[in-house]
Amino acid sequence: MSDRTLSEFDLIARLTANLPRRADVTVGVGDDAAVLRWTPSTDFILTCDAQVEGRHFVREYATPEQIGRRAMAVNLSDIAAMGGEPLAALVSLILPADTAVDWLDGLYAGLRGEAQRFGVSIVGGNVASASGPLIVDITLVGRTPAGGAILRSGGHPGDRLCVTGHLGAAAAGLMTFRGPARQPTVSATDIDQVREAYVTPRPRIEVGMLLAASGAVTAMVDVSDGLAADLGHLCAESRVGARIEASSLPIDAATRSVAQAYELDPLSLALYEGDDYELLFSVHPDQLTNVLAMLRAAGETATPIGWLLDESEKLELLTSGDSHVPLAPRGWDHLRLPSTEPSQMIPDP
Amino acid sequence: MSDRTLSEFDLIARLTANLPRRADVTVGVGDDAAVLRWTPSTDFILTCDAQVEGRHFVREYATPEQIGRRAMAVNLSDIAAMGGEPLAALVSLILPADTAVDWLDGLYAGLRGEAQRFGVSIVGGNVASASGPLIVDITLVGRTPAGGAILRSGGHPGDRLCVTGHLGAAAAGLMTFRGPARQPTVSATDIDQVREAYVTPRPRIEVGMLLAASGAVTAMVDVSDGLAADLGHLCAESRVGARIEASSLPIDAATRSVAQAYELDPLSLALYEGDDYELLFSVHPDQLTNVLAMLRAAGETATPIGWLLDESEKLELLTSGDSHVPLAPRGWDHLRLPSTEPSQMIPDP
Repeated sequence: MSDRTLSEFDLIARLTANLPRRADVTVGVGDDAAVLRWTPSTDFILTCDAQVEGRHFVREYATPEQIGRRAMAVNLSDIAAMGGEPLAALVSLILPADTAVDWLDGLYAGLRGEAQRFGVSIVGGNVASASGPLIVDITLVGRTPAGGAILRSGGHPGDRLCVTGHLGAAAAGLMTFRGPARQPTVSATDIDQVREAYVTPRPRIEVGMLLAASGAVTAMVDVSDGLAADLGHLCAESRVGARIEASSLPIDAATRSVAQAYELDPLSLALYEGDDYELLFSVHPDQLTNVLAMLRAAGETATPIGWLLDESEKLELLTSGDSHVPLAPRGWDHLRLPSTEPSQMIPDP
Repeated sequence: MSDRTLSEFDLIARLTANLPRRADVTVGVGDDAAVLRWTPSTDFILTCDAQVEGRHFVREYATPEQIGRRAMAVNLSDIAAMGGEPLAALVSLILPADTAVDWLDGLYAGLRGEAQRFGVSIVGGNVASASGPLIVDITLVGRTPAGGAILRSGGHPGDRLCVTGHLGAAAAGLMTFRGPARQPTVSATDIDQVREAYVTPRPRIEVGMLLAASGAVTAMVDVSDGLAADLGHLCAESRVGARIEASSLPIDAATRSVAQAYELDPLSLALYEGDDYELLFSVHPDQLTNVLAMLRAAGETATPIGWLLDESEKLELLTSGDSHVPLAPRGWDHLRLPSTEPSQMIPDP
């Protein structure tokens, strides 16, 4: 951007202000995905996301299959964040002139493999050639029963906040690619585990559908830009504040081990780095036990990490020392990092 | 592509061969758009297309509003080619770092203006920054009554071929931008007319819906890559041949005048250059009169230009001298032209 003060979110807000809406548009720009009431009994969910070489993926860090799988997965994650069942995908490829066809075969094998894993058909797309980086731009359509999509905007003060799985592992994985050769203090198993979290995140489709069907979840978002940033989105749309308990954040042992080796704060990885693709959701406090039991019964996990508060209380972090510090809703911004160098793929701490 | 023998269509065929299909996928990759039977009474239509700066548009040739309008129009044209009613759009923008926000305001005004003109809501999208050209990648959803979409594959030998509007004007318009200063033999009005055909093509949504509702149209495609190339697609999918009558091709006076000034064959512009966004369709010969009368009554025009033949007869052109010459199904290929120079935006004759 020539106007450097505009973030990705500012720019989207500016461009899409006062967009006209047909009567069948239930949710337009501003949530993880749009919701369309095209039939009385079903809501359709639409989302798109572009993965840009050098910004969202680096060829040296993964096989073409893995890059394809990940590009599909991060889009599926937006359907998961609405509680939707994914149906169909369109794949638009922007290819530099030197792209090897064999590499594309691998990319497409990953795209179709990840789609098939979740019952999604690739039904169309586009290819175009351009100078610049390779870009995989995917559109997904999903559905929920009418009125069943979980929005960012439904949270209330007093709701409990939970997150699925673990946080920070993907950022730790990226660090192992970017940083110096592995430290002797980190096991190969730990390295593999965090790299896998980065390279092939699993979209939480099943958990999202379970949570939506429970009727107990008030708001949901996927953690793609970092917990603090995505919590900020949920709170802004719900017009609430939130308190996160640092000691409750689910950070696994491999992430802690890698963070230590690279002299990084694991809490910072969990709060401010992206690519986890877990689901952050709020539930009425009376429903928390039921929801967690339901997830356990299905072999899924979620961790209570905080509370929604009145809007006036903004975002805060309850540290292990029991002090309350403001939590900046910052994280990954797709426009603020102009470089395509791998070394700038995540913001400096 | 590093494998220079692969065209856009070869590459798509290679990548999407044997894609698994859910039972609700009526039409997958290979037509103007995909068709999904998500409800018993309605078919949904999905399409996407990326417009790349320097390949599909040049900033110097049009205002940002016009570029936005055109990007939406060429996507709407794929919905028109199925006979569909467009509903919703997602807009994915890839922005070089030096993009001015004011310019984007203009682009978006064009996108939303063209969407609104056809009752389409922009419901989401994405912005990402990347080195390289500016890219506008649009996904559209449309619908028809169940079974109502007109495919490329329904043509039969003996069907009459027709095309809406005029051909070659957009290519003539592009020539006036690329070529030397205007020739004294061309009027300013003619220049303006062909430039408008290139800069702001009108997607034939209403005509497409009328033709689909008539029940008389057997196959349809939009003329985006050039008549010969798009006829080739229709014939390949319908497994038929075709004969086009050169003298019947609708080429307007302005296009002829510009072609003459630039020493170009207007027939070549009509046959081999893209960007017309008219509809090419086939009808059972008994229905031709009715269909043309119906269009006239609606204030629309279409011209009979030829016939579908048995597959063994391939594609041929009946010239004004009454000789039959093979018609190469060639035209615009989005991969074969590696340069982003405006001077290479259309293939050399």
